[in-house]
Amino acid sequence: MQSLAVRSAVHAAGIFGLYLSGTMLLPAAVDLYYGNEDWKVFAFSAFLTGGFSLAVALATQSSAPSVSPRFGFLLVNLLWGTAALAGSVPFLLSSLEMGLTDAIFESVSGITTTGGTVITGLDSAPPGILFWRSLIQWMGGIGVIALGLFILPYLNIGGVTYFKIESSDIEDRPFERLTTFTVALLTIYSLLTLTCAVSYAAAGMTGFDAINHAMSTVSTAGFSTHDASFGRYGDNYAVLWTAIVFMTIAALPSSILILFAIRGRTEAIRDPQIRVFLGYTIVLSLGVTVYLRTIDGVDFWEALTHSTFNFVSVITTTGFASDDYNLWGPFAIACFFVASFLGGCSGSTSGGIKAYRFFILYRLMANGLRRLIYPNVVLPVRYGDRPVDDVMQRSVVLFICAFMMIWLLGSVLLAATGLDLTTATTATVGALANVGPGLGDIVGPAGNYTTFPDAAKWVLSLAMLFGRLEILAVLVIFTPGFWGR
Amino acid sequence: MQSLAVRSAVHAAGIFGLYLSGTMLLPAAVDLYYGNEDWKVFAFSAFLTGGFSLAVALATQSSAPSVSPRFGFLLVNLLWGTAALAGSVPFLLSSLEMGLTDAIFESVSGITTTGGTVITGLDSAPPGILFWRSLIQWMGGIGVIALGLFILPYLNIGGVTYFKIESSDIEDRPFERLTTFTVALLTIYSLLTLTCAVSYAAAGMTGFDAINHAMSTVSTAGFSTHDASFGRYGDNYAVLWTAIVFMTIAALPSSILILFAIRGRTEAIRDPQIRVFLGYTIVLSLGVTVYLRTIDGVDFWEALTHSTFNFVSVITTTGFASDDYNLWGPFAIACFFVASFLGGCSGSTSGGIKAYRFFILYRLMANGLRRLIYPNVVLPVRYGDRPVDDVMQRSVVLFICAFMMIWLLGSVLLAATGLDLTTATTATVGALANVGPGLGDIVGPAGNYTTFPDAAKWVLSLAMLFGRLEILAVLVIFTPGFWGR
Repeated sequence: MQSLAVRSAVHAAGIFGLYLSGTMLLPAAVDLYYGNEDWKVFAFSAFLTGGFSLAVALATQSSAPSVSPRFGFLLVNLLWGTAALAGSVPFLLSSLEMGLTDAIFESVSGITTTGGTVITGLDSAPPGILFWRSLIQWMGGIGVIALGLFILPYLNIGGVTYFKIESSDIEDRPFERLTTFTVALLTIYSLLTLTCAVSYAAAGMTGFDAINHAMSTVSTAGFSTHDASFGRYGDNYAVLWTAIVFMTIAALPSSILILFAIRGRTEAIRDPQIRVFLGYTIVLSLGVTVYLRTIDGVDFWEALTHSTFNFVSVITTTGFASDDYNLWGPFAIACFFVASFLGGCSGSTSGGIKAYRFFILYRLMANGLRRLIYPNVVLPVRYGDRPVDDVMQRSVVLFICAFMMIWLLGSVLLAATGLDLTTATTATVGALANVGPGLGDIVGPAGNYTTFPDAAKWVLSLAMLFGRLEILAVLVIFTPGFWGR
Repeated sequence: MQSLAVRSAVHAAGIFGLYLSGTMLLPAAVDLYYGNEDWKVFAFSAFLTGGFSLAVALATQSSAPSVSPRFGFLLVNLLWGTAALAGSVPFLLSSLEMGLTDAIFESVSGITTTGGTVITGLDSAPPGILFWRSLIQWMGGIGVIALGLFILPYLNIGGVTYFKIESSDIEDRPFERLTTFTVALLTIYSLLTLTCAVSYAAAGMTGFDAINHAMSTVSTAGFSTHDASFGRYGDNYAVLWTAIVFMTIAALPSSILILFAIRGRTEAIRDPQIRVFLGYTIVLSLGVTVYLRTIDGVDFWEALTHSTFNFVSVITTTGFASDDYNLWGPFAIACFFVASFLGGCSGSTSGGIKAYRFFILYRLMANGLRRLIYPNVVLPVRYGDRPVDDVMQRSVVLFICAFMMIWLLGSVLLAATGLDLTTATTATVGALANVGPGLGDIVGPAGNYTTFPDAAKWVLSLAMLFGRLEILAVLVIFTPGFWGR
């Protein structure tokens, strides 16, 4: 590894940290507005983070490096690492008196849009810190979309390449394309958040709740301003259905929204992954609705609303809960377990295995079975009207294998800290798929990560980063080949 | 699907049933020897099965069909289906008064060498029925090896192809090769069983126990003649280590034993899958030994013996238990959960994902990560000194994906019958990997499948067959393409 590349990547991370320190003034303003003393925490955090970042940036000034895959991977990991560290500073300094482990866990959970929390007593927490949690999720969401649209395709992180918007879709000149994209992305994302917040407020939320939950919703993240999450609004179906609509939109490919906004084109709505994503969401939601109605005798609309809300929440990897579905019986629990692996669409903020991979896996399986009967037949794999090449096919199945293996490994590590099998396995998939909650009494929808051993929190923080960076982008920097042969 | 192929396959299954009916005279002899009235059950079962099989065989006589993949898959499924039905007849008619569901479950569990049981009160069960359980496992074991060596490679069931013994290894003339192989296989398998039985007896088992457990051991199946399984001999370390040795041998590639027996060649011992299989077995056994010694303060030899016994039992997919490891704490439980997926070597009677697939997956992952940094580098995948071609690479990762997906689906189906998440997920992997026991209070090492709902038993019976026939060989007959386009 050339030291120039390391130096340049660290320099970029320093500049990035400087920007992040600036965003800390927003929660400071919130605390000032509500007359809360904690605004000093954010001012001090901004000063600390900004000063340190500036020092790093100045110390690593150099000529620009040749842009290589190595530099790209290093940069991606450093940017997310910087965000994790910067995000944790206000938690460390706040009146909540969080330790380093908890501060890092909460920060990583936010920037990866996972949404599992170690804080209890949210209802009485300072408004600034609640807003900071929402803000790092919201910025993390933009980061994820940018990662999926611009960075991972360039780095050939398998499968993702396929979903980059082709230049012919927008512009011929790359630079203008990037600018157009960025502006469009930020505009759409902000408008979506605003619409969501207004809808929440109209449906009955307080203004502060509406803004925070809107930021948490459009980034499919899941932090709430209440310990009971959406259980606080469990009887307000207007709020729940608003959340269902916006979580679903947030899990759609952002390229569709961008293309629609820039060109008014809607044909991308026929993207197969959307059908798959909506398909399994509807099947699980309705399946458990029928189960709750017939077995438990729950009122139909109540069953439909809560079943749909919680499945959309888990499948889009948001992680809000409107009810403790851990008490809905074994069938529902198993369905939520499976739902934790699924995920939404590529190019959105949702995590997990994701719908397009299941689509391609299904096609590969069908072809594999057909070739058993007609060994010499040539069977192309198609995604919509485009062929799926060999590299893409491999990367899809390899990703699924890697996901399952890392999940099993993480579960063993968590169990080694003393957590039971259900807690260990579901907390790991909850982190790896960036869902947030798991199942069981401790990390189920009614629980949180407060009581977890420190070692477990570190394992989960790593799992969240692995999941968010599509596993391979993190794994690669641990290979010997990355650091020179 | 040509009706001639169906007719011929059914005809072959009829003849096969006729042979199976003959084997029922063995347990009849056992019951006669012990002066048990139940010999009549077996005589009647043989008469029924034989008569029906003969009728089917006569009714479907026809000219031999052209041998096609379709015919092959149909035959494989019909042969295992016939074995499942024939195996269940003595259970249905015996003094144990088992219903159809239980009889089929026990039979499928035997012929697939899974070893999960629905019978309680084994210690007082008639000797003939105990011997029948051992016998169907033992014959199932031969069937699995023959399937892996001769049939699946011909049918191109992915990955397995790779491990067929090449003709140059033995003979140039196929027919002689088949004869030599079959004789060698039966001889080795019988000698191994005999040696195992003598060793068990020498270590302190009764003669009857020694013979039954030997048949169950060399087929990595897991039925015992005691409700407590090897817990009955939990203090007899000679018995436990004898079992460890023979279970390990039984999970090695049979080709190695055959090549050694026929040619005295030992170089195949360097097969990478053996290193992987022994590697993860040793790591898990020692890991939990250290855990038991340090955390629970168990005596070192006791910890080593019981940890090794139970991990070898689960990883080789035998399923004996020497102790209730469900009580060994969360770390051990999570390790056993992961161990349920692993499996032994190709060409053995063990099930699961199997060591060679993990080896190839690891190589593919390493190559994939390397290609991220050097996008244009060409990286061949090697297995030992042989290249792994594209078809093999795909089939390995596709198999792992299919295994995990079917496991998740099976878990949901089991949970729909009212079983809790741990029971549902571990029972499904226990069946799919042909291990036998799962985890938790119901199907853990101290439990059995007696109390399962009928629907759950049918789902598991199907899962055992899926796992035994490497998933794809069963899935293929459910595709529309199989029955004509």
